[in-house]
Amino acid sequence: RCHHCSPAMLDVPFLPFCAFLGALGLLCVAMVGTWCQHWRGGFSLDGSSRTFNWHPVLMVTGLVVLYGAAALVYRIPNTWSGPKLPWKVLHGSLALGAFILTVLGLEAVFCFHNSQGTPNMYSLHSWMGLATVLLFSCQWAAGFGVFLLPWAPTWLRALYKPIHVFFGSTILMLSVASCVSGINEKLFFSLKNGTMAYKLLPAEAVFANTLGLLILIFGVLVVAALARPNWKRPDSDSPDSRQVQDALGG
Amino acid sequence: RCHHCSPAMLDVPFLPFCAFLGALGLLCVAMVGTWCQHWRGGFSLDGSSRTFNWHPVLMVTGLVVLYGAAALVYRIPNTWSGPKLPWKVLHGSLALGAFILTVLGLEAVFCFHNSQGTPNMYSLHSWMGLATVLLFSCQWAAGFGVFLLPWAPTWLRALYKPIHVFFGSTILMLSVASCVSGINEKLFFSLKNGTMAYKLLPAEAVFANTLGLLILIFGVLVVAALARPNWKRPDSDSPDSRQVQDALGG
Repeated sequence: RCHHCSPAMLDVPFLPFCAFLGALGLLCVAMVGTWCQHWRGGFSLDGSSRTFNWHPVLMVTGLVVLYGAAALVYRIPNTWSGPKLPWKVLHGSLALGAFILTVLGLEAVFCFHNSQGTPNMYSLHSWMGLATVLLFSCQWAAGFGVFLLPWAPTWLRALYKPIHVFFGSTILMLSVASCVSGINEKLFFSLKNGTMAYKLLPAEAVFANTLGLLILIFGVLVVAALARPNWKRPDSDSPDSRQVQDALGG
Repeated sequence: RCHHCSPAMLDVPFLPFCAFLGALGLLCVAMVGTWCQHWRGGFSLDGSSRTFNWHPVLMVTGLVVLYGAAALVYRIPNTWSGPKLPWKVLHGSLALGAFILTVLGLEAVFCFHNSQGTPNMYSLHSWMGLATVLLFSCQWAAGFGVFLLPWAPTWLRALYKPIHVFFGSTILMLSVASCVSGINEKLFFSLKNGTMAYKLLPAEAVFANTLGLLILIFGVLVVAALARPNWKRPDSDSPDSRQVQDALGG
């Protein structure tokens, strides 16, 4: 087990940190819901801007918060001993839940655009967001095929694992950047007139800007927790033979 | 020296990767300059939108590309042996150069807003961007005080080093997210009318969206290179006494 540059004074126990992250994630979900409900007219499925409102809520909940929870599963010390398969199933299920919410979030914005006659996929936000979702779908499918199904050989599991870990953090960074650019864009669209103009910083703007910063902090802390060497599985350097046995035996 | 999950098949030599990153960074600088020169009217210091144009060019050049170069200095294998002080001076100088360009980039947008009577600091982009610059200024000042000046004790250097490394990557992620939200916002501001509307995806929109994606890729690759265990100084686990000696002796 190797300790990169972690003097004891900076050691934070994982589980309290995780509880803090959970509270921060729930706060983000509550705030994006409050923003859409209180200032943007609430939710519906009629193709109006109230259909659009599902988009930010589902994206923040799925592609940021639930995704972050899925990513952190293997950092829970309980996962380091005993059979690995139940934790793999938990990791894959949380990620699948995040993916389903994400696809519904895409559906909400396409439905809104189509019913309003607005073109899809023109802004940098949409390009970045769709690239993030496409990467996420590849990540889930490849993770399922290589780590959960029993047929992948050990060398392929060992080869793919660092790629999966790298894209795990990368996709979260991209989804946070997508959320922030989306909130910024939505505020410019929505806050245009009179005393409610974005540039006059009404209460809604302060609230949604704060939400954007909290999403950023959540993403940075999850990526930092994933990268922290002494929160990783102690045997994460060794080849992946354990996983093969679990997959075959489970 | 420990190799986390890096099967030999994925080993990429650092210097060719670095050359690729340098080319990608230069491409980003060239593209943001081309965007502002060819589509946004070029550059001036008269407080008009041509003054604003310095903002994206200076931010991409300073806070992303030059900052990335500064961050990667200690990944060059030549820095791992011999006296450390020259490399510290190089790292600090590149970061100072990045910081100066960043401050000039802020000056450009404040000057533009003030001469147009537009309020400053209302959008999420501006909040995130200013937070990034403030973190960068703390990072530079603390790095200078703790690592370059000779007076900090060894325990303080060892304590601060992982914090400095963590914020090094975090600030780059934040600056990339700021750039992307800024490009997105600028395109919505600039491309409003007729056949040039952003939603009709004119050539400028395709060009600047592509620039945004390239900046994202640059940032992700720099953060990945920084995190890669076998590109780190082999002795990076050991206490920082070497640095103290260098600082005292140099």
